[in-house]
Amino acid sequence: MDGARKPGVMSAAEVMQLLEREFSQAFHAGSGTTIEDAWHGGCRIRRAYSERMLRPGGTISGPAMMALTDFAMYVAILASIGPVPLAVTTNLNINFLRKPAPRDLIAETRLMKLGKRLAVGEVSIFSDGIDEMVAHATSTYSIPPREADS
Amino acid sequence: MDGARKPGVMSAAEVMQLLEREFSQAFHAGSGTTIEDAWHGGCRIRRAYSERMLRPGGTISGPAMMALTDFAMYVAILASIGPVPLAVTTNLNINFLRKPAPRDLIAETRLMKLGKRLAVGEVSIFSDGIDEMVAHATSTYSIPPREADS
Amino acid sequence: MDGARKPGVMSAAEVMQLLEREFSQAFHAGSGTTIEDAWHGGCRIRRAYSERMLRPGGTISGPAMMALTDFAMYVAILASIGPVPLAVTTNLNINFLRKPAPRDLIAETRLMKLGKRLAVGEVSIFSDGIDEMVAHATSTYSIPPREADS
Amino acid sequence: MDGARKPGVMSAAEVMQLLEREFSQAFHAGSGTTIEDAWHGGCRIRRAYSERMLRPGGTISGPAMMALTDFAMYVAILASIGPVPLAVTTNLNINFLRKPAPRDLIAETRLMKLGKRLAVGEVSIFSDGIDEMVAHATSTYSIPPREADS
Repeated sequence: MDGARKPGVMSAAEVMQLLEREFSQAFHAGSGTTIEDAWHGGCRIRRAYSERMLRPGGTISGPAMMALTDFAMYVAILASIGPVPLAVTTNLNINFLRKPAPRDLIAETRLMKLGKRLAVGEVSIFSDGIDEMVAHATSTYSIPPREADS
Repeated sequence: MDGARKPGVMSAAEVMQLLEREFSQAFHAGSGTTIEDAWHGGCRIRRAYSERMLRPGGTISGPAMMALTDFAMYVAILASIGPVPLAVTTNLNINFLRKPAPRDLIAETRLMKLGKRLAVGEVSIFSDGIDEMVAHATSTYSIPPREADS
Repeated sequence: MDGARKPGVMSAAEVMQLLEREFSQAFHAGSGTTIEDAWHGGCRIRRAYSERMLRPGGTISGPAMMALTDFAMYVAILASIGPVPLAVTTNLNINFLRKPAPRDLIAETRLMKLGKRLAVGEVSIFSDGIDEMVAHATSTYSIPPREADS
Repeated sequence: MDGARKPGVMSAAEVMQLLEREFSQAFHAGSGTTIEDAWHGGCRIRRAYSERMLRPGGTISGPAMMALTDFAMYVAILASIGPVPLAVTTNLNINFLRKPAPRDLIAETRLMKLGKRLAVGEVSIFSDGIDEMVAHATSTYSIPPREADS
């Protein structure tokens, strides 16, 4: 899954439409989250900066970054294998590395395994325009058996 | 930290007042989150059920449980060592075990280490009134040096 | 899986015989590892103290505790569901909490989920006779489909 | 810590000499582990294939890969900041992705944070000559205060 990017089975725009239809409460045009790009095995997500994400001391809350991680994993899976509405997170491990700047967050997902039953990936989170990573996560999704398989 | 519960240096009510003062945006009387009990080395938190936490298929969202975990760790640390506003999460690892029921979530924290620099704990999340755990997390907080130490 | 202990489908002695037969290189009478007890959903393992496990400063090596964790998970799964030689670890997360004493290590496993495809458990490691935990791990095993299932 | 590699404060050969001196039991010329390269923020380690690492079914044991991960993190830290004999692992999280081939294992470490108190890195493990990763880990080391600091 390294090297040149292969197109996914769904484009960023197609994943966005699917999510707006299926998860309209959580994900809509005004939610501040944009799928900038998506390909086979990965994606890049932008989360607009908002004062609501702040904690005292001016830091962006950990839960905001965990929610972004979980979303970025799901988008990479959808782009890679198409609609699997019942895929569920089974594990998420995150290390918070640095205090994020008061800027947009950028999350980049790279799937390291895309098996029939499990997808495992890593998500690197940056403050927009700054090189040093602010958080790094790995996560596993369980993929339900396709109807054709059963 | 096992065995009979020792009172913390702050009670559940005192922690709640501190959080309402310091984190008024995230934590207030109408937020649906209640500190049911807090003691030296642990606490029990209730997160009221709300349709906003739902995902398609009727499951409660992973990010809602991750946010609850992070909060439950912080409350246990405050109860155990008093106000440390700048304590920050460095690691959180969560396993999602079962689909939660459409009920309140109950989070129980047990600190396994309470050192000068690091606090490590586990958080067990249940659907209210149901024995089987829905999620289990471990997390590490970094505790800043006290002024008296430097 | 909480509460009173239910017998497993294999006893500690039966698991030990299976492992000596299947994993004779790694696990034999002189290996220093003993299954003290095993039940449905858990087990207790003893790892005899040996100077070979030491690191400079007199601490027991992390890898020795990680190997013990992995073994303790596998024993609990075997006791709970019987021989599944091809069960494999998919994730292991360990927090090292305190410097172990120069004593035997005791590992206690508690399975938190025992599904058809995944088993998730926690392993608590102690120095024999000392109350405070030296390490705590959570781990997931993938369980292959039974022949009867396919 | 991305981009072109900067030399570390210790070279691969210097780290190897230090480890042979300090950890002579675990690490010596015949141990099968070689530091192929080390730089500021990372290293590459080779673990020679040996039948002793095998499990039934021909797979390389998880504990062998966990030990390699822990070692690869420590080498990257030594190369980056020089001798810190009392640095200790506080957390290690590993995902096993594919069955390794019966070949040497190659571990590549990349430190994502190198703070005064904590170092956080990721270790990618490959079968020699094969592109797809067999395991991926993240780990945190606690770095003791330098004498000059106290």
